[in-house]
Amino acid sequence: MTPADIFAVSHRDPLGRARAGILRLAHGDVPTPAFMPVGTHATVKGLTTAQVADTGARILLCNAFHLSLRPGENLVRSLGGLHRFMNWHRPILTDSGGYQIFSLGKLFDVDDSGVSFQSPVDGKRVTFTPERVVAIQEALGVDIMMPLDQPVGWPCEEDTARFAMRRSLAWLRRAVEAKTTPQVLFGIAQGSVFHDVRREGTEGVLATGVPGLAVGGLAVGEGQDLMLRGLDYALRGVPPAYPVYLMGVGTPADLVEAIDRGVDMFDCVLPTRNGRTGWAWTSEGVLRIRNAAFHDDALPLDPRCDGPCCRVSRAYLRHLFVAGEMLGPTLLSFHNLRYYQRLVEGAREAIIEGRWPTYRLEVLDRVRRIGKR
Amino acid sequence: MTPADIFAVSHRDPLGRARAGILRLAHGDVPTPAFMPVGTHATVKGLTTAQVADTGARILLCNAFHLSLRPGENLVRSLGGLHRFMNWHRPILTDSGGYQIFSLGKLFDVDDSGVSFQSPVDGKRVTFTPERVVAIQEALGVDIMMPLDQPVGWPCEEDTARFAMRRSLAWLRRAVEAKTTPQVLFGIAQGSVFHDVRREGTEGVLATGVPGLAVGGLAVGEGQDLMLRGLDYALRGVPPAYPVYLMGVGTPADLVEAIDRGVDMFDCVLPTRNGRTGWAWTSEGVLRIRNAAFHDDALPLDPRCDGPCCRVSRAYLRHLFVAGEMLGPTLLSFHNLRYYQRLVEGAREAIIEGRWPTYRLEVLDRVRRIGKR
Repeated sequence: MTPADIFAVSHRDPLGRARAGILRLAHGDVPTPAFMPVGTHATVKGLTTAQVADTGARILLCNAFHLSLRPGENLVRSLGGLHRFMNWHRPILTDSGGYQIFSLGKLFDVDDSGVSFQSPVDGKRVTFTPERVVAIQEALGVDIMMPLDQPVGWPCEEDTARFAMRRSLAWLRRAVEAKTTPQVLFGIAQGSVFHDVRREGTEGVLATGVPGLAVGGLAVGEGQDLMLRGLDYALRGVPPAYPVYLMGVGTPADLVEAIDRGVDMFDCVLPTRNGRTGWAWTSEGVLRIRNAAFHDDALPLDPRCDGPCCRVSRAYLRHLFVAGEMLGPTLLSFHNLRYYQRLVEGAREAIIEGRWPTYRLEVLDRVRRIGKR
Repeated sequence: MTPADIFAVSHRDPLGRARAGILRLAHGDVPTPAFMPVGTHATVKGLTTAQVADTGARILLCNAFHLSLRPGENLVRSLGGLHRFMNWHRPILTDSGGYQIFSLGKLFDVDDSGVSFQSPVDGKRVTFTPERVVAIQEALGVDIMMPLDQPVGWPCEEDTARFAMRRSLAWLRRAVEAKTTPQVLFGIAQGSVFHDVRREGTEGVLATGVPGLAVGGLAVGEGQDLMLRGLDYALRGVPPAYPVYLMGVGTPADLVEAIDRGVDMFDCVLPTRNGRTGWAWTSEGVLRIRNAAFHDDALPLDPRCDGPCCRVSRAYLRHLFVAGEMLGPTLLSFHNLRYYQRLVEGAREAIIEGRWPTYRLEVLDRVRRIGKR
């Protein structure tokens, strides 16, 4: 499988690397740049799949690690696969769970064969190998599979980053061998923010012949400047035919800067996680809806938003949060996801219409007003 | 205002007292029998108002007591009234909060003038009088207002019931005097399950000239047999022109038996409260979705349900509850509200088509299979 089998760039910023394209996947086309809402346990928290579709999302991210532990990939397969299980019929990408496993602290053992850990669900010992992780995602029937990888945190020594990058490459080669279906398998390039490690990581992924490149191990605390430097190292020399996915990123400013560097796909928990705590992105900056200033504010969250979240006042949304009502997190999650989708939809239009540099600066100016209220 | 100004019966069961009609209210018509979902704090827990409308609900119940304490009726009025505040543009009835205040245990003081209590929101002393409760609901701008009343619990002595009934009547007369708008004010007849008290309660309400009769103080623990006996006492001799609202009732069997006695309106927290804990009504009885038996069950909750809740499997819904995901309570709340709406829609159709007795028996047979799984 080559990049051209799943991805076509249609428009480019003439002066830079931003581009618009289409991912062609088993469950439909995805215009890029694309933002994937996170539905870890086969649900975007608090939203029905109809609502997720109403935000404009064309592809979801779920988590193979979590779904394997509960309810189990074989159950999902027996019920017709993950799309049918969760009633979402557009494309799905599953993260492998490497990041989640290595977030378990001291509770895992890792060697070249794979990683074993105590299940956070039932305490049982579980082993994930590169082969097992592919098999899980084949059972789930997702459109895009991610290989088991070994991420590193921040701060991180260069030797540690190199070691994890090389192990991730070795695991990717085993994942490529293990794959038995026509599902798409991306490669994950690790390397933290180190030039030589990033170069080797990316070249190693491309050498495996996978049709898509995921950049992992960034946005783990190093800050935007270092993150973008690592991204630059990772993407230097990548043929433009490859779809590029920047994992776990990020803020609206991160997305715009990464799109400017040629990234096509993103996922992040921020819009839903922050939405649940009452934090809303708007065209005027960030609002913390519990703020007493909104007690009697008759305006919608964002006069420029077209979602159902913005057919009520800030005063009503604040009331929902103060009263502890579930509808508050639901409406702010919807709003933030719609904000992110409008952001990437706007980026795509701007690239297509040849005004990307202006759009980028407008967004950066807008989001830098963050925290005013 | 007379009953004919707001209510018209169009069809009757020729052998009994079940009837179908239309309530004509400021924000639209409501076909009866009608079930009102409960949106205590200006939200049906976990559902957007679009979803509530999708369940088929034509009228909502909110709570004047709760909304007065938070966010305050003056704020709601300044934002355009309760309909606009919560983005629900069909009729709204508000309960006065009598029941909630008297559920505060020892935290209230009551005399003929009204009731004072410590606010559960901020601990401040608050006084509700019949006049104040009308003013709150006028500020909210609801379609149907309920007067302050003094309910009694169960078990209950006849003298206690009589005392509370008479005080509730005195307060109703003050509420009628206090009303300054064309909003509809119902009367609440108390009287527990005692024949003479119920008769006096109903006659007292009708004597005030209000256009609708609410039967309060039932379904508080006395059991269905006594509840229906109290209802029979309360409704004997009520002119058929009056819309009748049985407050806080109840199970599907309760609704059917009450419709059979001439009740037109209901509200109850059961479908949403039980839905949040994983309990679902279906055409095959009640399912407790956390039950391990549903682990791999590919069927929808109810093959006869037409809601989005039934486009996923029981296995998926169980997974959501086991994983503690918000979407589980949301989908089961939707499902149960849709079940209740289908129940009253079916009752209405059966009455109109002259097959009410058969419909009643079918429903009773179905719901008596409760608890099998």
